Amino acid sequence: MSAQIVSGKELSAKIREKLKERVKKVEREKGFTPGLAVILVGDDPASHVYVNNKEKACLEIGMKSEVRRLPKETTQEELNALIDAYNAREDMHGLLVQFPLPAHLSQEEVLARISPKKDVDGLTVQNSGALLSGLPGLVSCTPKGVIRLIKSTGVEIAGKHAVVIGRSNLVGKPVSVLLLNENATVTMCHSKTKNLPEVCAQADILVAAIGRAEFVTGNFIKPGAVVIDVGTSRVDGKLKGDVKFDEAVEKAAYITPVPGGVGPMTITMLLENTIDAAEMFH
Amino acid sequence: MSAQIVSGKELSAKIREKLKERVKKVEREKGFTPGLAVILVGDDPASHVYVNNKEKACLEIGMKSEVRRLPKETTQEELNALIDAYNAREDMHGLLVQFPLPAHLSQEEVLARISPKKDVDGLTVQNSGALLSGLPGLVSCTPKGVIRLIKSTGVEIAGKHAVVIGRSNLVGKPVSVLLLNENATVTMCHSKTKNLPEVCAQADILVAAIGRAEFVTGNFIKPGAVVIDVGTSRVDGKLKGDVKFDEAVEKAAYITPVPGGVGPMTITMLLENTIDAAEMFH
Repeated sequence: MSAQIVSGKELSAKIREKLKERVKKVEREKGFTPGLAVILVGDDPASHVYVNNKEKACLEIGMKSEVRRLPKETTQEELNALIDAYNAREDMHGLLVQFPLPAHLSQEEVLARISPKKDVDGLTVQNSGALLSGLPGLVSCTPKGVIRLIKSTGVEIAGKHAVVIGRSNLVGKPVSVLLLNENATVTMCHSKTKNLPEVCAQADILVAAIGRAEFVTGNFIKPGAVVIDVGTSRVDGKLKGDVKFDEAVEKAAYITPVPGGVGPMTITMLLENTIDAAEMFH
Repeated sequence: MSAQIVSGKELSAKIREKLKERVKKVEREKGFTPGLAVILVGDDPASHVYVNNKEKACLEIGMKSEVRRLPKETTQEELNALIDAYNAREDMHGLLVQFPLPAHLSQEEVLARISPKKDVDGLTVQNSGALLSGLPGLVSCTPKGVIRLIKSTGVEIAGKHAVVIGRSNLVGKPVSVLLLNENATVTMCHSKTKNLPEVCAQADILVAAIGRAEFVTGNFIKPGAVVIDVGTSRVDGKLKGDVKFDEAVEKAAYITPVPGGVGPMTITMLLENTIDAAEMFH
């Protein structure tokens, strides 16, 4: 049996069609257009590509987008002042600062400064506390996209055993909490986990988020599992996931590809969060 | 083989001796005495007992304690004003509002109002976000006590499989994150978990925090495990834990009793948090 491919590209396209309608509805009923502000410091080429993609995605669904590209010499004080200005602006409902920052700038200080109500990346302490405590808040985009992909398979999450490999603040930890909130039994694994293949082979739902190309081989996969591959590593110029696709596809029931799986969902969830923020807090 | 009993009473006594020294050191070096303020609304008899115990424990180690007992008719506005006053007071370094509150008062509003720097119960969104994100903050007392009890056995947590039953904001979720931070592989179980005994029987470290008397029977226990029993239920006037002690003690290597296990650690961690808050933020 070969697994069904769960296309994040297709799911994203469907969701973005609905978001387009939501933008129109906000305009019609509330008289304004949801807007996302992005601050980009320095000249990291990958970051410029990501930010351009975000801007394009906003415009495609009819949202406003404003990108501030700052030189890499920008000081923390200048960055802080700009964050404060966007926190106060009524026409921008989401605000994100693209990471990584140049080394002299503090990511922690940035995250402590962004208004939790505009934190569409869901990375402020306030929003991660809300997530853990089960309170309303903005949820980190990639973890949110992972849950949507799982749900798109039709497989019920409640009561299933989900195993998450990787415990980053960006993916592993929030995705574990989200799966718990969906009533899965959740096991959190990482570099110190013993017998990792055996632990993973118990998973009805396996989420790989470690960033090591093709680390998850066929013996990690329980037959019939849902496998979500969050990792992206570049190997010889080719984008590879954390999962050895050729092996996993023969055992899983559902599997996301890399590219075209989790990746497209992240920006889609960013758009959704911005519209949510506009509706909730404007 | 019969398990070694892990006495929270004895461990608490040892820790409190050290805290007594820390209080003296703060007085000597910084010229003030750490102080804990407790607000108690209404006449719930159990709450009055808890609050009296907290006050007594503060005084015993040389700390200051101030308890405000308010009538059950107290309004949210009055309670909020009192919280604001304690947030501003320089001689009180910890502040907690005893739960449960009378039904007309909002626990959520209280937790949003207490300064995270004085939140010695570790229950504000700010502190639970810090916990999940791995940032410094004040950690909830019972989960912190659970980790100390495990460490007191000398069993290494890193690389072990820990299973937590129960996912409350007060215990299950924070204890899972703390165990993850200690490099355990952590499985979070709850009422929707299938094959619970089998899942638990994989645990090198088992934490039961569900509040169902003697729910965890011998077949849940891996031989040689560390078993921490957080539950307390009153059955026919007797205090019972979540673990069927007589069965578990024959399989575990270490086990906490009820009473005298986790219970005494909670107040001890409250004292420690108050001294930490005094040292960090005064």
